[in-house]
Amino acid sequence: MATQRKGKQSIVPEISPVITSWASVAGKKEAQGPLGNRFDIKSDDSYFGQKSWEQAERCMQQLALKTLMKKADIKQEDLELVFSGDLLNQCIGSSFSLRNLNIPHLGLYGACSTMAESLLLAAMAVGGGYFDAVAAMTSSHFASSERQYRFPLGYGGQRTPTSQWTVTGAGAALVCSSGHGPRITACTVGTVTDLGIKDANNMGAAMAPAALSTIRQHFDDMGVGPEDFDLIVTGDLGQHGKDILLSLSQQEGLSLGGKLADCGCLVFDNLSQDVHSGGSGCGCSAITLCSDLLTRLNKGKLKKILFCGTGALLSPTSTQQNLPIPGVCHAVAITGV
Amino acid sequence: MATQRKGKQSIVPEISPVITSWASVAGKKEAQGPLGNRFDIKSDDSYFGQKSWEQAERCMQQLALKTLMKKADIKQEDLELVFSGDLLNQCIGSSFSLRNLNIPHLGLYGACSTMAESLLLAAMAVGGGYFDAVAAMTSSHFASSERQYRFPLGYGGQRTPTSQWTVTGAGAALVCSSGHGPRITACTVGTVTDLGIKDANNMGAAMAPAALSTIRQHFDDMGVGPEDFDLIVTGDLGQHGKDILLSLSQQEGLSLGGKLADCGCLVFDNLSQDVHSGGSGCGCSAITLCSDLLTRLNKGKLKKILFCGTGALLSPTSTQQNLPIPGVCHAVAITGV
Repeated sequence: MATQRKGKQSIVPEISPVITSWASVAGKKEAQGPLGNRFDIKSDDSYFGQKSWEQAERCMQQLALKTLMKKADIKQEDLELVFSGDLLNQCIGSSFSLRNLNIPHLGLYGACSTMAESLLLAAMAVGGGYFDAVAAMTSSHFASSERQYRFPLGYGGQRTPTSQWTVTGAGAALVCSSGHGPRITACTVGTVTDLGIKDANNMGAAMAPAALSTIRQHFDDMGVGPEDFDLIVTGDLGQHGKDILLSLSQQEGLSLGGKLADCGCLVFDNLSQDVHSGGSGCGCSAITLCSDLLTRLNKGKLKKILFCGTGALLSPTSTQQNLPIPGVCHAVAITGV
Repeated sequence: MATQRKGKQSIVPEISPVITSWASVAGKKEAQGPLGNRFDIKSDDSYFGQKSWEQAERCMQQLALKTLMKKADIKQEDLELVFSGDLLNQCIGSSFSLRNLNIPHLGLYGACSTMAESLLLAAMAVGGGYFDAVAAMTSSHFASSERQYRFPLGYGGQRTPTSQWTVTGAGAALVCSSGHGPRITACTVGTVTDLGIKDANNMGAAMAPAALSTIRQHFDDMGVGPEDFDLIVTGDLGQHGKDILLSLSQQEGLSLGGKLADCGCLVFDNLSQDVHSGGSGCGCSAITLCSDLLTRLNKGKLKKILFCGTGALLSPTSTQQNLPIPGVCHAVAITGV
């Protein structure tokens, strides 16, 4: 077996896996945002016809997977494996969405980095010759997240300026050993970074150092720099976290300036949609990637991007125990058609 | 890239990854059980010197990882990747244990199947030529689990006959591309199975159908049967779930009889230790594998086992919403030295 690793933390499959299809499901607020016309499925009903927001999230993942299989024109039995996870306690959005579908499933927890983590593992599984058609999927829901991590919605608490708006949406991508579409050329696994941020309403600050660490590592491992990408797009730092990342990178002599974008700032119009620092949640980077970004890569409008999923590894328990918020970031380099 | 898959759900790395070292950390009750003298680290303090049970779990994973590196005689910077997860909300046992250690980390959620899931992914990462030294790790804690999934311990609720006792412990295994030790020859990824069990105190019943499904699939994919293994060892079905699995398999004409064991029945003496149906939790299969089983495989006392991690994919929210408990099982075939 020839090595498929490069540097300390990066993998480079000998034959680059292809993202042949992608699908996105979005809620009402997301549909009203700048990417509104790019989503496959949009719903005005925050319950998606279900009895609870948690079941709505399960439903969104099922819709995303069904749409993905339809767009890819593959049958359920030809989907060999699904890597997925979400923010809900015990990841019930993911596991319940796959109940009795007879599709092999490996569950992940990477907080809001899950779209990148699942893509990375799908690329590893396909690039290793283990599977030929693997889905990477995740979701989040504003209402299920708020009541789990913060307050009951009915409480109507005031949101702080650095707070972000959890995206209601699910995204899924199909990673294949052959076919037509954008290709995953390299991935970098992140480390758990903790600079002591304790404010659960300032996750951008908690995740920015992890993003910088992984982006730097990707550049070091691969011998590349910002100039090699059309876009370096983080998952959900929000405007505040993006500003921190820019400032931190400048301090280290790394100029990300013109290339840096953040899905949290792409998916909403922060000002007119009153989302404060921007979007967040697993769904944020998932629906941005699995609509606009992959479509632009597929049309040759983007030549190469570094998709950097960012995750804040907190829990309500760790917050209540006054512990800091560790961050993680996984990066996936994707080249256009 | 040559195919490394066999059948529908199984992977067979061309060069079998080697489990060169393993480490186990156990609580007081576990140390008093039948495997008591096999654990590397034992503690009478359920807090492991920390301020909360959640932090105790974080501490157990750190102890397991430190012990693993010591036993394997490798430095922290030579540990290339850790796959880990746990039962705590948002997997804080795993993520907090790796804070600022600068070790690449991919977080998993497979409920109590996590030891098998992490081993499977470590085998995939090593067998694909991506990494040379990858750790698979997980933990659980009786007290953190009880208060999260069921009742505050002080409530002193009566336990039902089918209930199980969450193991306080952490296990870690080092999977390498070369070296001496038991080898991972094949792995089977499970599907999410749900037969409608809703009793959160009867997880054995919820997981037994998933175990049967994955064991049958492994046999089909690999063209093997019970006769090819010294032991087929499930993660934490407990006595009740093990009886159900035996009964279900007999109905399908599959005789697992003399070969079937369950970590939940190995780790405790069910009767004298008053654990009702047996042990459970991610730590149950983790400390059984990473002490007794791997040692016996390494000494040639076991020639080949099928290690079947079983997970009940419930959450307190899904239980309160009166939803059933989906189960999953991942299998790892390990051959002795």
